[in-house]
Amino acid sequence: MSQDSNRIEEFNAYRSRMNKRILEDGNHRGVKRFFNLDTNAYSDGALSGRTKELLGLVASMVLRCNDCIDYHLIQCVDAGYSNEELEDAMNVALVVGGSIVIPHLRHAYETIDMLREQAD
Amino acid sequence: MSQDSNRIEEFNAYRSRMNKRILEDGNHRGVKRFFNLDTNAYSDGALSGRTKELLGLVASMVLRCNDCIDYHLIQCVDAGYSNEELEDAMNVALVVGGSIVIPHLRHAYETIDMLREQAD
Amino acid sequence: MSQDSNRIEEFNAYRSRMNKRILEDGNHRGVKRFFNLDTNAYSDGALSGRTKELLGLVASMVLRCNDCIDYHLIQCVDAGYSNEELEDAMNVALVVGGSIVIPHLRHAYETIDMLREQAD
Amino acid sequence: MSQDSNRIEEFNAYRSRMNKRILEDGNHRGVKRFFNLDTNAYSDGALSGRTKELLGLVASMVLRCNDCIDYHLIQCVDAGYSNEELEDAMNVALVVGGSIVIPHLRHAYETIDMLREQAD
Amino acid sequence: MSQDSNRIEEFNAYRSRMNKRILEDGNHRGVKRFFNLDTNAYSDGALSGRTKELLGLVASMVLRCNDCIDYHLIQCVDAGYSNEELEDAMNVALVVGGSIVIPHLRHAYETIDMLREQAD
Amino acid sequence: MSQDSNRIEEFNAYRSRMNKRILEDGNHRGVKRFFNLDTNAYSDGALSGRTKELLGLVASMVLRCNDCIDYHLIQCVDAGYSNEELEDAMNVALVVGGSIVIPHLRHAYETIDMLREQAD
Repeated sequence: MSQDSNRIEEFNAYRSRMNKRILEDGNHRGVKRFFNLDTNAYSDGALSGRTKELLGLVASMVLRCNDCIDYHLIQCVDAGYSNEELEDAMNVALVVGGSIVIPHLRHAYETIDMLREQAD
Repeated sequence: MSQDSNRIEEFNAYRSRMNKRILEDGNHRGVKRFFNLDTNAYSDGALSGRTKELLGLVASMVLRCNDCIDYHLIQCVDAGYSNEELEDAMNVALVVGGSIVIPHLRHAYETIDMLREQAD
Repeated sequence: MSQDSNRIEEFNAYRSRMNKRILEDGNHRGVKRFFNLDTNAYSDGALSGRTKELLGLVASMVLRCNDCIDYHLIQCVDAGYSNEELEDAMNVALVVGGSIVIPHLRHAYETIDMLREQAD
Repeated sequence: MSQDSNRIEEFNAYRSRMNKRILEDGNHRGVKRFFNLDTNAYSDGALSGRTKELLGLVASMVLRCNDCIDYHLIQCVDAGYSNEELEDAMNVALVVGGSIVIPHLRHAYETIDMLREQAD
Repeated sequence: MSQDSNRIEEFNAYRSRMNKRILEDGNHRGVKRFFNLDTNAYSDGALSGRTKELLGLVASMVLRCNDCIDYHLIQCVDAGYSNEELEDAMNVALVVGGSIVIPHLRHAYETIDMLREQAD
Repeated sequence: MSQDSNRIEEFNAYRSRMNKRILEDGNHRGVKRFFNLDTNAYSDGALSGRTKELLGLVASMVLRCNDCIDYHLIQCVDAGYSNEELEDAMNVALVVGGSIVIPHLRHAYETIDMLREQAD
């Protein structure tokens, strides 16, 4: 996996650079408010932010978006979920979304392994 | 809402009748195993069954399937989630899935109200 | 079409009732802000609100949501688009989204006819 | 199932009426050509029309469109597929598309039963 | 952005090469007719071709296809849309399609910047 | 095409490595059973495995997953389908799924050419 070991760093750098482009250099009020709303959706509320990150992960998997999966996995690992818990959540996504989710499951396991390796 | 007050009963009856048709009268081994796998995905494991029902609800909302939303709402209300917790989960689905989710949000709120009314 | 002639009225009534339920009786700040953001997305800006309604119609068709299609058709007819213009927009949705869009195209033509009939 | 026994007739009547509205009363060249292209896609070619109807059925199931499923089931039953063959095809759709396909599987089994009943 | 500065050129070259492969070396009448229908959908008609490119862009964003987004952005920039107009259209796509559209929004802003740079 | 000539080998290697990671190192019973169910869905039954691979290909194209398309194309070429038959199946996917499928059609033709080249 070493050849890809900076995949997550590259994703984070690209994400930061383009979000800055969209939100600072860009000037669209609706877009800015959407980004703000998106951030707030995962704050503590009636449900904990930790639970909501898991909801975001499963939503991202059934909608099959690797960048969204990576983003929520980073948050989920940070929130202290174990591999067993993440696999249990991803299994729900797999059953709901079907075998078309499998390529994203491969990507997600690889991301989890990279995040654990980084943490060591 | 009274004119529709039996919408959930009708859904449950249709669901039971057709599942029986598919699983008992039908004879396809793969289909039967899929239904079994689907049931097991929401059992207690590394995550509680209760948490996994919430994951199933959000997955159903972003994939925009009213029957699936109703099924998981029945389980979620049964598992003791408050309206505030369900709204917080559905807000994640709304932000991830966008305004195209709104018609299903209307349906979901109506289902929740019907389920609370039934429980009274 | 007379047997269905109140389909649009029923949709509008249900939509109003449930939006009131969600926004007034409900109390979720994120959901309320999303609805507000959704309304604002179709206001005049760099593009006219009129143009943005057409964008909303095409987005609704390729994502295959009849309620969303009806909502945007009501706005589009109100904004003065001719049938020829609406058909030209829906043709883009048909080509991008494929034959799976056809059932929604049938629904949309029926809605347009109902809206023109009402206007007479 | 008797209360719904005319569901398929109603679908066929609505489909014919609206297709006539779209293709005869309407005047959009692109839309007309698309309908023509759609019809031709299921003619005998390198693959038989019979095989292509099965492909259309599975595509309709994973994209979760009941009207499209009904249309292709009518063609498939007409082409002489047995229930076992249809179930085998629908099982592929179920595994690829996941549990979100299940409500459409219920609908499809009901349609098949209605079509067999009509044929008796 | 310089390391990716030929991303659009590569896309155009690949697109041309494979379209030639599909349409010239390939021999499928249905596929050829579809490509022709697709081209015609964006010609001037009741709506201008310019307006229809914007519809194509929004449809591509909510369906989350980067290649389709790039193609329509090239046409939209060529048709003279300003960044403000494009952002206003993409905001509609973002609100309709939700946060799952955000990775494609990043891609789209990057493409727009590349196209403006090329034009200088 | 020579610069990409090992695209299929890389896909196969990555797929094998990650499937091993998911199924052997991983320990989730539900996930393992899903993979097993997925494999079995394409075995000979009422329909031949050969026919079911074609169904899998069309399902993968309308759901727009390149990895799934490549996997089923490998199986389809192995099962002896001619290019004309594959084009006829992909044309059904194109008409059902619309122009948003075109980038995946380009990918699929390229994969077919690579597989034929390998076989020489």
